[in-house]
Amino acid sequence: MTEYQKAMNGEITTSLKEVAKNEGMDPEKLRRLVAEGRVILTGTAREHCGVIGIGEGLTTKVNANIGTSPDHDDVDIELEKLRVVIEAGADAVMDLSTGGDIDLVRKKILKESTVPVGTVPVYQVAVEAAKRGEGITDCKVDHFFEVIERQAIEGVDFMTVHCGLVARLSREVAKSRLAGVVSRGGSLLMQWMARNGEENPYFEHFDRLLDILEKYDVSLSLGDGLRPGAVADSTDRAQIGELLVIGDLVKRARDRGVSVFVEGPGHVPLNEIHTNMLIQKKVCENAPFYVLGPIVTDVAPGYDHITAAIGGAVAAWHGADFLCYVTPAEHLRLPSIKDAREGVIATRIAAHAGDIAKGIPGASGWDNSVSIPRAKLEWKKSIEKSIDPQKAESLYDKSSGGDDELCTMCGEFCAIRGTMRSREDYEKRYGDS
Amino acid sequence: MTEYQKAMNGEITTSLKEVAKNEGMDPEKLRRLVAEGRVILTGTAREHCGVIGIGEGLTTKVNANIGTSPDHDDVDIELEKLRVVIEAGADAVMDLSTGGDIDLVRKKILKESTVPVGTVPVYQVAVEAAKRGEGITDCKVDHFFEVIERQAIEGVDFMTVHCGLVARLSREVAKSRLAGVVSRGGSLLMQWMARNGEENPYFEHFDRLLDILEKYDVSLSLGDGLRPGAVADSTDRAQIGELLVIGDLVKRARDRGVSVFVEGPGHVPLNEIHTNMLIQKKVCENAPFYVLGPIVTDVAPGYDHITAAIGGAVAAWHGADFLCYVTPAEHLRLPSIKDAREGVIATRIAAHAGDIAKGIPGASGWDNSVSIPRAKLEWKKSIEKSIDPQKAESLYDKSSGGDDELCTMCGEFCAIRGTMRSREDYEKRYGDS
Repeated sequence: MTEYQKAMNGEITTSLKEVAKNEGMDPEKLRRLVAEGRVILTGTAREHCGVIGIGEGLTTKVNANIGTSPDHDDVDIELEKLRVVIEAGADAVMDLSTGGDIDLVRKKILKESTVPVGTVPVYQVAVEAAKRGEGITDCKVDHFFEVIERQAIEGVDFMTVHCGLVARLSREVAKSRLAGVVSRGGSLLMQWMARNGEENPYFEHFDRLLDILEKYDVSLSLGDGLRPGAVADSTDRAQIGELLVIGDLVKRARDRGVSVFVEGPGHVPLNEIHTNMLIQKKVCENAPFYVLGPIVTDVAPGYDHITAAIGGAVAAWHGADFLCYVTPAEHLRLPSIKDAREGVIATRIAAHAGDIAKGIPGASGWDNSVSIPRAKLEWKKSIEKSIDPQKAESLYDKSSGGDDELCTMCGEFCAIRGTMRSREDYEKRYGDS
Repeated sequence: MTEYQKAMNGEITTSLKEVAKNEGMDPEKLRRLVAEGRVILTGTAREHCGVIGIGEGLTTKVNANIGTSPDHDDVDIELEKLRVVIEAGADAVMDLSTGGDIDLVRKKILKESTVPVGTVPVYQVAVEAAKRGEGITDCKVDHFFEVIERQAIEGVDFMTVHCGLVARLSREVAKSRLAGVVSRGGSLLMQWMARNGEENPYFEHFDRLLDILEKYDVSLSLGDGLRPGAVADSTDRAQIGELLVIGDLVKRARDRGVSVFVEGPGHVPLNEIHTNMLIQKKVCENAPFYVLGPIVTDVAPGYDHITAAIGGAVAAWHGADFLCYVTPAEHLRLPSIKDAREGVIATRIAAHAGDIAKGIPGASGWDNSVSIPRAKLEWKKSIEKSIDPQKAESLYDKSSGGDDELCTMCGEFCAIRGTMRSREDYEKRYGDS
């Protein structure tokens, strides 16, 4: 039985207890949320991997994409990236490898990762076709599913499958959009459909997919092949059309006992993010929402960890449950190890800002643990509690002139010290304390 | 007459025309907005300085704080910082010097700056007291105003004066808050009031301040001495109490023909930003709003350009007109030149994301100018239009395997190329185009 089926049967499993403890939530309450499909558990496949919960009422989780590309296919770099993103606080990783020996990369990541691992199996279909000197368009339907089963057996925790990008939407989007399809998996399926004149195999044979996912308890991430790749394309007919298809597939997955969540945009202006969160929760009956950004402007390649932190924070506030990191390398190159680390921290900032805003119990306690020592000029203690003490420590510059721990921003004109002095004066003058 | 008075008199000045042209707005419409106090013009004092408009219906502007501190008092570094922040796109700068020969620094900045220059005159009061071996608490009321007049004569364009931090609020805040007063200027006035048991001189003698500002047409930025310095303190009695005082002072400044805008928070959780923008516009009768962040979480020293970009974008969307940059050095040290540049870019991203969301005409045209070439794989053209071409160019990594301009993120599996191929196939199959 899958974790989802066990929760529906009223069972409080070890995995569920683990997540309830980490989230500070009553296990029975969590069980109900899982049973209703509002929360999914993932990371149960491998002994050394921690289980996480994604969904309503829980802290917003952060995913880091790692993996090779045809130009950068060094396994060791990707394993180092894995270690770095986990140390920086990623809750999950996706292995998106498309270069070199991708089976080897995935097996090593699965062996080493202490957080859940996701994949996009259609990439492997395309890579194996390329190795045969063919394209994705030459692949047989069976191949699409064989890869899924192979990866499921290996212990992949969740898989993104672009089941909702159906043939009519693919044809429509090719004509209508500024930036077309920017999802790599979506684009592979689009090419297959455009060339062969057939329906998306993952949609056409959705039950075959569910058979495998149920058998191995792999969580299904319903990919948004039609996520907008430019603010001009956001919240368009194609994007919402795909979401409606996905909503139907959520129900079918749940009926089969498969844990399911939904992927979302993309490039979205700030004022459309709330609407995007609301419609996903409505149409997908409160399935957890996994967003890629959203990136709130197209103009900032090199800074898309920032454009995504803006959108991700607002998305998390309005109901996104899982944020895929975006790194400064987005749109420009495969992220380096340094890019990946920056991406994780920026996305964790967004997730936490969202958690404060949506009222996750205890979220702002973290802020107080940084600000209470800061207000006492206990810089070391404050920095230790911060999101990246190593970075803060490297920037901190102690004032030479102060008689206590002042920084070089204000030196002796420190506002905090001014407040302390004023408190003393008010105490003397009026007995205030 | 001040620019504001001229606008009220129906005059369309050269400065007004300049701003209308830059904003793509009808001059008469802009004149009405200035006359109503919804927009202020600043930067008219010096020949070589461009005039900017700040307020309703205009693009959101970005300010960069520069200036020495007791530990870093090198004039040349601050002048280099000035050049760098202007090149990076800052619309205005504030000279917040407190270290070394601050008169010299200010004069050089005023001589060189092609954008409006603001100051916080109370810093100079404190610095001059320190040079006499005294503290701010020893200063006479006249000194507070002498400094203002001296700086006005020199050609400072706008001044932040913390007139709204009245004695009763100062005493209240000393007792009630986690992080006390974090505004440097606010804290200096608080110390003066706490020690001397008197009212804030800038409040007590507000008409004296207005005399000077009107005479030299200096815009008044009503400082928020009580901006929250921790999310635990946000939108509290003290902050809103000060805003109410400021609202009254806005009216008094307008009655005297002084251009006036209002400073705002600070550390504010995401879900309180809209409320903060709304209440400022209500209480201050639509005076332009100049926000410092807002920073949406306390936990990220070293990344406060990101916490502020999140808050600044949402603030701009909901009505903030002017964003003060925050750099990665915030809370840790005086920003370096590199920190300052990063702060400007991050804040410009926030301002632009807000401009798209609030529907500034033409804002998303910039996005299209980046995305249209991107969707054609014309990377060079796309990067040239981006916010920091130099940074994007330095990260861009061209794929070695592609037959056209692919990057190393996906190489041959590029989604954009997939879209292009699919379009061709749909054209062949159905005649779509």
